Amino acid sequence: MKIIRTADYEAMSRVAAMFLLAEAVKGYEHKTNIAVTAGRTPIRMYEILQDFLKDNPIPHTEYYNFDEIHLAGEKEGVTMRDLRRLFFEPCQIAEDKIHVFGAQNYEGYDAFLESKGGLDMIMLGLGMDGHFCGNLSGTLDCFDEGCRAVSNTLNETLAERIAFLCGGKENMTDFYVTFGPKTVMNARKIVMIVSGREKAPILKKVIQGELTVDVPSTILRMHPDITIIADEAALSMLD
Amino acid sequence: MKIIRTADYEAMSRVAAMFLLAEAVKGYEHKTNIAVTAGRTPIRMYEILQDFLKDNPIPHTEYYNFDEIHLAGEKEGVTMRDLRRLFFEPCQIAEDKIHVFGAQNYEGYDAFLESKGGLDMIMLGLGMDGHFCGNLSGTLDCFDEGCRAVSNTLNETLAERIAFLCGGKENMTDFYVTFGPKTVMNARKIVMIVSGREKAPILKKVIQGELTVDVPSTILRMHPDITIIADEAALSMLD
Amino acid sequence: MKIIRTADYEAMSRVAAMFLLAEAVKGYEHKTNIAVTAGRTPIRMYEILQDFLKDNPIPHTEYYNFDEIHLAGEKEGVTMRDLRRLFFEPCQIAEDKIHVFGAQNYEGYDAFLESKGGLDMIMLGLGMDGHFCGNLSGTLDCFDEGCRAVSNTLNETLAERIAFLCGGKENMTDFYVTFGPKTVMNARKIVMIVSGREKAPILKKVIQGELTVDVPSTILRMHPDITIIADEAALSMLD
Amino acid sequence: MKIIRTADYEAMSRVAAMFLLAEAVKGYEHKTNIAVTAGRTPIRMYEILQDFLKDNPIPHTEYYNFDEIHLAGEKEGVTMRDLRRLFFEPCQIAEDKIHVFGAQNYEGYDAFLESKGGLDMIMLGLGMDGHFCGNLSGTLDCFDEGCRAVSNTLNETLAERIAFLCGGKENMTDFYVTFGPKTVMNARKIVMIVSGREKAPILKKVIQGELTVDVPSTILRMHPDITIIADEAALSMLD
Repeated sequence: MKIIRTADYEAMSRVAAMFLLAEAVKGYEHKTNIAVTAGRTPIRMYEILQDFLKDNPIPHTEYYNFDEIHLAGEKEGVTMRDLRRLFFEPCQIAEDKIHVFGAQNYEGYDAFLESKGGLDMIMLGLGMDGHFCGNLSGTLDCFDEGCRAVSNTLNETLAERIAFLCGGKENMTDFYVTFGPKTVMNARKIVMIVSGREKAPILKKVIQGELTVDVPSTILRMHPDITIIADEAALSMLD
Repeated sequence: MKIIRTADYEAMSRVAAMFLLAEAVKGYEHKTNIAVTAGRTPIRMYEILQDFLKDNPIPHTEYYNFDEIHLAGEKEGVTMRDLRRLFFEPCQIAEDKIHVFGAQNYEGYDAFLESKGGLDMIMLGLGMDGHFCGNLSGTLDCFDEGCRAVSNTLNETLAERIAFLCGGKENMTDFYVTFGPKTVMNARKIVMIVSGREKAPILKKVIQGELTVDVPSTILRMHPDITIIADEAALSMLD
Repeated sequence: MKIIRTADYEAMSRVAAMFLLAEAVKGYEHKTNIAVTAGRTPIRMYEILQDFLKDNPIPHTEYYNFDEIHLAGEKEGVTMRDLRRLFFEPCQIAEDKIHVFGAQNYEGYDAFLESKGGLDMIMLGLGMDGHFCGNLSGTLDCFDEGCRAVSNTLNETLAERIAFLCGGKENMTDFYVTFGPKTVMNARKIVMIVSGREKAPILKKVIQGELTVDVPSTILRMHPDITIIADEAALSMLD
Repeated sequence: MKIIRTADYEAMSRVAAMFLLAEAVKGYEHKTNIAVTAGRTPIRMYEILQDFLKDNPIPHTEYYNFDEIHLAGEKEGVTMRDLRRLFFEPCQIAEDKIHVFGAQNYEGYDAFLESKGGLDMIMLGLGMDGHFCGNLSGTLDCFDEGCRAVSNTLNETLAERIAFLCGGKENMTDFYVTFGPKTVMNARKIVMIVSGREKAPILKKVIQGELTVDVPSTILRMHPDITIIADEAALSMLD
């Protein structure tokens, strides 16, 4: 595990952008597959990327979302909607370079990723409960799972959270889907971005706490090529 | 996880030799670090390697043992003794290309490996109890451990096994040392070699059974670059 | 340029086999493209490879011939006939892993190679006149040529040589084809194998002489990743 | 040869910055060696890099200048002075990450580069006369040269040019030094940046003209991994 400590959110976003650009630029030469994250943490990074990626189509770089919360009656879910708004549209990523993961294809998606040559990089954030992708604390019995569905009403906390993300219970569907721990561990490179003092306690657990499915991100430290890019605030509770 | 199925032990040994040679030959260009296994499974592979490696010093290829059972009053333990006899001497590996891991330096060895640039490949066998390196079933509380010592008298079964390997209780020391799961997962490439029908039940568990510290090798399937080279007999119980 | 000095032809063949195996074994993971040589120098290497490659189909390793002298009235030329006999048949390389280069497709073949992802490795010998592939001394005006045809009767020496290789003038066609210098320089890795005292004067020129189209192989030393594997005898005239 | 066509100088600078960042970021993991260019073309690129590199020391990325025109009585020459001003100082590159090439060490510098593991990337511009680094048209007899010195008074044109660059004849020394064609071809990756309509005629010659020492940059198209990043204007005369 490599930890890159940056002064603040802006600096973290810059370093994260470097890592994403370094992977994307390989696509001038040969195919490269990158799974990307929605959420708040990468917002500034995606802004930085615009200057480099818009008006600059890279021929062989392909992007993947890694989880999806569907909305009742809508074709695209919360994650893809956010990714389009934050990343794909401002950075002008061509539609044929975007692979949509969702309820319609999560079964068999690990095999699909393998048929594409495997993920070269996955960039993900860290949830307050220690989750990565949609692997929330309390939804995971075992680290050894690939792409999977999770009932939106598995427990009350989860139901409320999903309802909030969907903009109300009435928009909820039955389940959401996510890359499982095994899917993520199978990527050749993992980059985790973390910012802010409120993430400090959970980041400490992820890096120094017990390996447990209750803090799903702890498994990621078993990966041979994981880099955590975090600001001072997020790293402030580390021993 | 990639599984290469070979007809028999001889063919398995040939394919394993190809993988080891492919890593070793990088040492003409730049440093490459390979951890190697003693035991019965690699015997034929090491014989095959002789024709390629003896009289042919490769400038930047370095080798590491990954566990050691020390003998009372002896300088070198069981693993290094076997590796010298099976591999280093017949293949004429120069002394300055051999890194000896043992009771004298196991603390801090994960940091040492990192300072050397990390392991590029580890080739290991599979024990009847699902162990890899010295991570025997029953000795492991958690996958999240680096290089470690295990009491030779942790339980009766272990004590008997170690005594046998040492050629008698009188030769036993207090503990043996081994790369832990985290040390192995940190290698860029893992190659596991397995042969024979007697390994079929445990190999099935490693590939298809529950992820558990009771079958230590199950963690290895979470690695993004693991190849299992096994003969038909060893793979005969797979679904 | 890296020079690997071996004791004799047998040792050269072993080291060359290591390099070829190291490239071939990548085909378990992803596509790899290897251009191979006919002629006398690789004969022993191909024998050594049999034990590793026969009965062991590697899923993504593909092979290419790099020149061809066609025979009147025959479908396959001298090079493919020799490669089949020396390498493809004894090593059981599947037909769909063999790409045949010849008069029928030499135009546009550089673009074809690029569409296949480019050559990962080309292994070639050294001719007594300093040629590599079919780029004989006297046939080349400029290093900046891709796949090309050469008239079999360009000059008397060439005509005699080709007639000999074809087993008589009556079997000759109008021209032979070859990868040009640019095609070869475009490969990611070049390995040249050289054996015997009779090659010592020309090998000295290739390594230490003037860069000139009259000794075509001199251009190869401008490649960032070329390895010459040669025995003592072939290297005996070097300063 | 790969050609990346950008709309204008700003876009060219962005893409070039991506390539440089992609190489620099490898230095979080292992050593990477980058030779960089002074001159006008990279000015905007270096500005872009500041946001990423200042306040962000990368542990294993090392930089090299590739030519030097010394000034009488001054310790540092024109190239290093410009590189410090344009790149090293604003991007806060630590002194121990900068390798100074000059009259004091140009002999033996090819061996020094090899001892450092070789150049991973060299980024260079294109001169109006087809030069790269200090390999001006008329100074080169042969492509097969490594690091070398060129007399500042080799001919009148050169003498005037050097005097101008030195800010007057009184500041000139006897010779300047430069990486030769072989030094550059030995780099694992070459990136050439070109901007502006005034470069269109020479860029056409470099890409489509005859291979000749009179247009030194023509040799670079024989490299297996060269990328030319150029704007529309610079590419406007290509067939």
